[in-house]
Amino acid sequence: MRAELISVGTELLLGQITDTNATYLARLLASYGVDVLAKQTVGDNLERVRRAVSLALARSDLVITTGGLGPTEDDLTVEAVALAAGLPFVHHEETAVRIADFFARRGRTPVASVFRQARIPSGAQVIPNRKGTAPGLIVPVGRQVIFMFPGVPAEMEGLVADGLVPWLAERVGDQVIRSRVLRIAGMGESLVEERVQDLVHGANPTVAPLAKLGEVHLRITAKGSPATVTGLMDRAEAGLRERLGDAVFGVDDETLQAVVARLLIERGISLAVAESCTAGLLTSRLTEIPGSSAFLVAGFVAYSNEAKVRDLGVEAGLIAAHGAVSTEVAMAMAEGARARAGARIGVAVTGIAGPDGGTPAKPVGLVHLAIATDAGTRASEVRFGAEAGRAGIRHLAAQAALNLIRLSLLER
Amino acid sequence: MRAELISVGTELLLGQITDTNATYLARLLASYGVDVLAKQTVGDNLERVRRAVSLALARSDLVITTGGLGPTEDDLTVEAVALAAGLPFVHHEETAVRIADFFARRGRTPVASVFRQARIPSGAQVIPNRKGTAPGLIVPVGRQVIFMFPGVPAEMEGLVADGLVPWLAERVGDQVIRSRVLRIAGMGESLVEERVQDLVHGANPTVAPLAKLGEVHLRITAKGSPATVTGLMDRAEAGLRERLGDAVFGVDDETLQAVVARLLIERGISLAVAESCTAGLLTSRLTEIPGSSAFLVAGFVAYSNEAKVRDLGVEAGLIAAHGAVSTEVAMAMAEGARARAGARIGVAVTGIAGPDGGTPAKPVGLVHLAIATDAGTRASEVRFGAEAGRAGIRHLAAQAALNLIRLSLLER
Repeated sequence: MRAELISVGTELLLGQITDTNATYLARLLASYGVDVLAKQTVGDNLERVRRAVSLALARSDLVITTGGLGPTEDDLTVEAVALAAGLPFVHHEETAVRIADFFARRGRTPVASVFRQARIPSGAQVIPNRKGTAPGLIVPVGRQVIFMFPGVPAEMEGLVADGLVPWLAERVGDQVIRSRVLRIAGMGESLVEERVQDLVHGANPTVAPLAKLGEVHLRITAKGSPATVTGLMDRAEAGLRERLGDAVFGVDDETLQAVVARLLIERGISLAVAESCTAGLLTSRLTEIPGSSAFLVAGFVAYSNEAKVRDLGVEAGLIAAHGAVSTEVAMAMAEGARARAGARIGVAVTGIAGPDGGTPAKPVGLVHLAIATDAGTRASEVRFGAEAGRAGIRHLAAQAALNLIRLSLLER
Repeated sequence: MRAELISVGTELLLGQITDTNATYLARLLASYGVDVLAKQTVGDNLERVRRAVSLALARSDLVITTGGLGPTEDDLTVEAVALAAGLPFVHHEETAVRIADFFARRGRTPVASVFRQARIPSGAQVIPNRKGTAPGLIVPVGRQVIFMFPGVPAEMEGLVADGLVPWLAERVGDQVIRSRVLRIAGMGESLVEERVQDLVHGANPTVAPLAKLGEVHLRITAKGSPATVTGLMDRAEAGLRERLGDAVFGVDDETLQAVVARLLIERGISLAVAESCTAGLLTSRLTEIPGSSAFLVAGFVAYSNEAKVRDLGVEAGLIAAHGAVSTEVAMAMAEGARARAGARIGVAVTGIAGPDGGTPAKPVGLVHLAIATDAGTRASEVRFGAEAGRAGIRHLAAQAALNLIRLSLLER
C-alpha cells in the first residue's frame, strides 16, 4: 500500500507554523509498514488543493489530508476532494446535530457558516470529532481511499485514533513495524557502538544508535506480526542490556530525572542538592516529577563563594586552596547540603559553564560532581567541550549529576 | 514571483524528523513578499525527485530544494535536478579542493565518495559551504532558477544567508515584508487586545496578537521599501507602547529573564531567590544569562516546611497559622532570602503546582509571590488554571516572579 499526505493551509506556506501533523502521520504509517510516497503542502486555494488531490489519486492508494475543514470560506478541502473524486455533496444530518450540540453545551449560538462542516462528499463515512466541530471523513474512491482530518493537532490525533488506526489495523495489522528506544547515560556513543557492534547489523530487528545531549539512544525496530515483533524486541533488548549493564537507564520516553525520582520514592530516600554552575537546573528537573516533595528536602544554589561558605558550610580555606571548581569543594558542598538539610543523600555540582571564566588549567566545560551518603562521599570530574555552549554544559552537568545519583542508588 | 519548496529525504516521509527547513525558508520568502505556491516532500528516489522538480518547474519561478546533497548513493538531488533541467554534469575543481581542505584541517582522510559533492549541473553557480562539505547551488533554467541546499539545518541556514538572501534582496529588495514582535508580560490577551483594538485593524502595518504561556506577543508586520517599513514599524511600536506602558518588556527574541538580568547588571543590584513550587526553575532561568554571577548571590529551594524555617528563617508559627502557600509565608521567604544572602533584593515563590495538593480554598495553580527590597516587602497572589498542568504552572509562576522583579526595578 502506498500512501500520500496532503497538508492544506496558507499558514504552512508562510512559515507561520511547522507541519508537525505530517510527522505524526508519517510515523504512524511507518509503524504499520505503510510506505509514504510523497507529501504535498498547498495553500487554501480550491484549484490547487484539487490538483494536489488529483495528483495523489494518480499515484497513491491511500491519501490523507489535514487542514481546510473549518467553517470559513477559506476551508476548501471537502470541496476540492469532492471535485477531484467526482463526487456530489450531501448534507449529513447527524453531524449537523452534533455541531448544534457542541455549541449548546458551551452555551453559545453557532453562526450559520459552521454548518458548512456538515456537508460531506457522497459515500463518505464520518468520524465524529470529540474535540471540535469538523468531522473526520473517509472517502472511498474506487479501490482507493481518502482520509480527511482537521489541521488542529489535538483534533487530528483524536480522529486518527478513532478512524485511521482501526482501519490500518484491519488492513495491515498482521504486519506491523514497532520501535523501542533504550536510553543510556554515562557512556559515550562510540563506546556504546563498540559494545553492541555485532547486534547493530541485524536485519530484523534493526538497532540504530543516536547520540543525544548527555545520553545515547538505541532504537530497536522490528517487523512482523504483533506477537513476533514483541518477542524480537524483547530478545534484542535483553542482548543490549547484557552488554551495557547499568548504563541503560530507561525505555522510550522515560527521562533520567523520572528514573531517579522513582528510585528515591520507592526506597524512601531523601535528597538535598547543592548547585553552582547548574544554578537550580538540577533541582528543577528533579521536581518536574509529581510527588517529588516526598524525597526533595532542599536545594541550595550557592553561586558565590560566600554562599558556599554560609549556606553549605564549605570552609573558606578549602576554596582558597583548591578553587570553587574542584573535587574538594564539590565534596564539601555535597556533605554540607546533606548535613544542613538532614537528608540521606547530598549531591553537588560545581563547574565552569562559560562563556567566560575558563583558564588553561580549568577550562570552560570542566565540572566537578560529588555525592555524600552514609557510606561516605565520592567525587567525579567531567570535561565537556566548550563548543556545547553555556546551555549545553549546564544540561550535561545536570545530566551527569542525575546519573551519579542513579548509579549510587543502584549500588546500594 | 512564485516559489516552490522541495524537501528531499526518506527520513521525512518516515516521520523520523520534522521539516523545520521548510518553515525557515517559507518565513524568509514571506518576509521578502515572495509567495510560496506549494511544497513537495519526496524520498531519496531519483525518479521521484526528478518528477517533483519537473512539476515545480512547470508552475513556479523559483524552486528551492533541501536535502539529498550528501556524499552517499542515496543523495540524488543534484542528479535529479540535472535530469529535470536537461543539464549535463561538470566537475567543480574549486569545490573538490575545498572538500579536501575541510578534511585536512580536521586531520581526517576523505573517502572517495565525498568528491561526488564536487559534481554540479553545468552552468550552476556554487555557494561555498562553511560548515560542511556539500556546497549550495544556484541553477539557472531559462528564466527560472533552482536553489539547492543541504538538509542539515545549520548548513542550510548558512548557505541561505550567503546565497539566497543576497539574491532575494537584489530582486525583490525594494518591496520587503518585515516583522517585529513586542513581548508583553503581566497582562492577559483580552486586556491587551482591548487596549490596542483600534491599532490591530490597520492594513499596513498589521498588528497580530498571539497568546503564549505567560506572555502575549504583538507581531507588527509592514510592507514597502526597507526605509518605509522601518518607519511604519517604529510608529506602530510607539503607538502600542503608549497604550501598554511597562507591560511591554522586550522586542523580538528578548526573554523576560534576559531583560531582568540586564536591569540587575546595569544597576549593580544583587538578588537572592527563594523558591518552593518552582524549585530551582526561576534561579535556573536567571542564570541562563552569561554574567549572571554579577547579580545572583544565592538561591534557596525550600521545598519542605523545615527548609523554609531552617534555610530562610521563616517562623514555624507563621506556616502553622497561614499555610506554606500564603502571602505571609511568601513575604517571610523573600525577606529571609534577602537577609541570609545579604542581597539588595529577595524574591520568593510558593504555590501549588499539582497535580495533587489542592484544596477548595487553595486550589492547584494558586501561587503567592513576594519581593523584599530596602523600600519594604510586597506580595502578589496569582491563580493559574489547573489545566495548565504542573509544568505550565511552574513556568507561569517563574514568569510572574521575573515580571515582579522587573516592575520593581523599573519603579526605582
